[in-house]
Amino acid sequence: MGRTIRFMETILRDGQQSQIATRMPIEDMLPVLEDLDSCGLYALEVWGGATFDSCLRYLGEDPWERLRTIRSHVKNAKLQMLLRGQNLLGYRNYADDVVEEFVKKSVENGIDVLRIFDALNDTRNLKTSIRAAKEAGGEVQAAICYTTSDVHTVRYFVSLATEMERAGADSICIKDMAGVLTPEVAYELVGEIKAATDLPVQVHTHGTAGIGQMTYLKAVEAGADIIDTCLSPLAEGTSQPATESMAIALDGLGYETDLDVDKLDAIAKHFAGVRDRFLADGGLNPKVLEVEPKALLYKVPGGMLSNLISNLADLGASDRYNEVLAEVPRVRAELGYPPLVTPLSQMVGSQALMNVLSGERYKVVPKEIRDYVHGMYGRPPVTISKEIRKLIIGDDEVITRRPADLLEPELPKAREEIGMYAKSEEDVLSYALFPEQARDFLGRREDPFYDVPVQEVEVTIDVA
Amino acid sequence: MGRTIRFMETILRDGQQSQIATRMPIEDMLPVLEDLDSCGLYALEVWGGATFDSCLRYLGEDPWERLRTIRSHVKNAKLQMLLRGQNLLGYRNYADDVVEEFVKKSVENGIDVLRIFDALNDTRNLKTSIRAAKEAGGEVQAAICYTTSDVHTVRYFVSLATEMERAGADSICIKDMAGVLTPEVAYELVGEIKAATDLPVQVHTHGTAGIGQMTYLKAVEAGADIIDTCLSPLAEGTSQPATESMAIALDGLGYETDLDVDKLDAIAKHFAGVRDRFLADGGLNPKVLEVEPKALLYKVPGGMLSNLISNLADLGASDRYNEVLAEVPRVRAELGYPPLVTPLSQMVGSQALMNVLSGERYKVVPKEIRDYVHGMYGRPPVTISKEIRKLIIGDDEVITRRPADLLEPELPKAREEIGMYAKSEEDVLSYALFPEQARDFLGRREDPFYDVPVQEVEVTIDVA
Ligand SMILES: [Co+2]
Ligand SMILES: [Co+2]
Repeated sequence: MGRTIRFMETILRDGQQSQIATRMPIEDMLPVLEDLDSCGLYALEVWGGATFDSCLRYLGEDPWERLRTIRSHVKNAKLQMLLRGQNLLGYRNYADDVVEEFVKKSVENGIDVLRIFDALNDTRNLKTSIRAAKEAGGEVQAAICYTTSDVHTVRYFVSLATEMERAGADSICIKDMAGVLTPEVAYELVGEIKAATDLPVQVHTHGTAGIGQMTYLKAVEAGADIIDTCLSPLAEGTSQPATESMAIALDGLGYETDLDVDKLDAIAKHFAGVRDRFLADGGLNPKVLEVEPKALLYKVPGGMLSNLISNLADLGASDRYNEVLAEVPRVRAELGYPPLVTPLSQMVGSQALMNVLSGERYKVVPKEIRDYVHGMYGRPPVTISKEIRKLIIGDDEVITRRPADLLEPELPKAREEIGMYAKSEEDVLSYALFPEQARDFLGRREDPFYDVPVQEVEVTIDVA
Repeated sequence: MGRTIRFMETILRDGQQSQIATRMPIEDMLPVLEDLDSCGLYALEVWGGATFDSCLRYLGEDPWERLRTIRSHVKNAKLQMLLRGQNLLGYRNYADDVVEEFVKKSVENGIDVLRIFDALNDTRNLKTSIRAAKEAGGEVQAAICYTTSDVHTVRYFVSLATEMERAGADSICIKDMAGVLTPEVAYELVGEIKAATDLPVQVHTHGTAGIGQMTYLKAVEAGADIIDTCLSPLAEGTSQPATESMAIALDGLGYETDLDVDKLDAIAKHFAGVRDRFLADGGLNPKVLEVEPKALLYKVPGGMLSNLISNLADLGASDRYNEVLAEVPRVRAELGYPPLVTPLSQMVGSQALMNVLSGERYKVVPKEIRDYVHGMYGRPPVTISKEIRKLIIGDDEVITRRPADLLEPELPKAREEIGMYAKSEEDVLSYALFPEQARDFLGRREDPFYDVPVQEVEVTIDVA
């Protein structure tokens, strides 16, 4: 028999995050958790990314409780989470004490594998979370944030992978958040990383540009060990290629998948009902299923293009679109080729827009860009030239240390501030990560009437 | 440089037929016909299939006029149509005189390539249209109707392809209408047909089951010359993989495509607007974009499954679904393994349903099945056993000749019947194919008020 290819199922995290804005409640998961656990899947991605924020903000769920619940039903498959390195689940650097504690508690509450990445691919920003994960007994999957640019060559990514291996990674993920990894690059990249390291390689892409299936196929042919797929009801489009489809195709091509496709089909039937509900109530916008090859043509992620279009429309400057589009790669190069992923894609887009609209390049510079040039986000792939640096931050000093080295411990203050509502260390961490949302959530938990409008309470009393 | 892979663009026929029920009017095509002609596409599929009926029935367009209009704008790309052999664009056998005249007029009005297939893969049903096409100077693409069953092996299809070559085919199409052709079978089948014939091989699949991109990739690796794709706005799901995406992926892998992707992108922008309009007014049901791997698991096309489900629901017998599903392959085997394509899929489904619900197998038999067993549709892939034949048609004789041999010429009668409205031989053919719709359409053309309700005419008079 052929080589075994394992699958990570994303429907509980990236699949639902990509298609239904992470609004799936635990109730939609409970009926099939045991089946998901016993159908041969290598791992379930269930936590991290936007799920934490969404639990607190929209679903009235304790994210830690969700994790424990899932763990209580899942005994065979690994539980995986996505972590933005020093940014954890947010977009700012947290102090090391928060990172250490958060990672430790993630493992304690049930996570097996932590997929850790940094938007700039600055491995210094992964250091603390990798160490903490290993200390807690978790498995570290270091993720390369895949992007295209003159400097993001196969050689560059391979050297990054070897750096990650030295930093203690147990496996490598090629994380293509924008769906721009083409089949031939996937083939080359996977082959080279397999040759240069001793680690399993997992590939993550999206169907947005209409090439995801081929990218996985070529990655597998080059030696990829695990692919990320989503059960058919929330597959393709902005999500991943379908689990059942990839399994059947690879099986036919002589690979082993260990998957019970009949069981997968039964689980898919459940999620088809969930999907239909979201489609009916507008929670699933059919636009997410459209094929959008633009990102491959313009080398700019689809989401960034639509952001620019809507920002320009808001400013009544839609006619400057082509100028801004041409300015994007220029700004990106000048800023040292940051990967075009959140929040860097938004930052580069804003700067390009301001450069065009203000009539003078870098006349207006958002605070985030100044912080970035100061080194507060980490090391750009290429050093920013003296001229551009001077233009943006004048003679200010640039931080050369790991940005989080500058941060004082944050947990003591968090503990104090949320003390009256926090019942556990996990609660404190929720507050440390998302103060407003956690305070709201924990407060409501304390007082069931907390968020009930006064008027409604009166009505209830009247009736009684 | 690598081998050249050519593309046939389907957005004007199969793409729009699959996603928006063939409702695209010529006005949506006109603005981009010249661009479609000059961006390197090998062919445009523009006619046949359901377009003819849809023009007459829903769009108030003369299908012949549409073809001539398109031809007047398209000088480089070949114009292609889909033809159901002796059934032309319908589901019954037409007499040879109709077939001959229809094919001749198709070429005269602008068609370059006729893709001709028979639902049973009975090449006798292709004979007349192939001969007529060649006489008219058209290019004949004989299409294998791809299906899966115990008898539909690679060897079977290869022998069919060689038979088609002997019958005069200029190229072979592997036509996978249900999207069930897996990558490994595509690879094997294309390779074997290329080895066994001297003809170009074109592959046609659908994205329904979530494997279409991989199937094309493997087909290309095995030597396929042309693939059928659809511009991104109506791509994937029940339609084909996206033209731009496949072009970029294949280009990256070292193949030549001759395509101008920037031009394709500009054309796609136009069709994105069309798509959005159909989506907004309900003409595009987002369900067509969903991934549905069921057809791969059950070896039964998705459309057939949903038909069964809704038929059973109508009959209040939804609880018998699994029994009917198990009966389908049994009936199919007993009927000589017909490909599960229209109308055979519906016929097999109905018979399976009646076998289960009536409590006795073949107690109730629809007229179509009796005709089929009589040989009126052609030769089944496998001869039907004496027992089953006897059960269905008793001691009746089975036709062993080509079914259309039994038909008297039909054009004289058609000419007479539609004489008062027909202004051309093309009009007569429209009537010969779709009498009701053509009479309505040609009548309306005669009298612009023909279909205006009396009440509205009165209102107009009142106002005046
Ligand atoms: Co992702
Ligand atoms: Co088709």
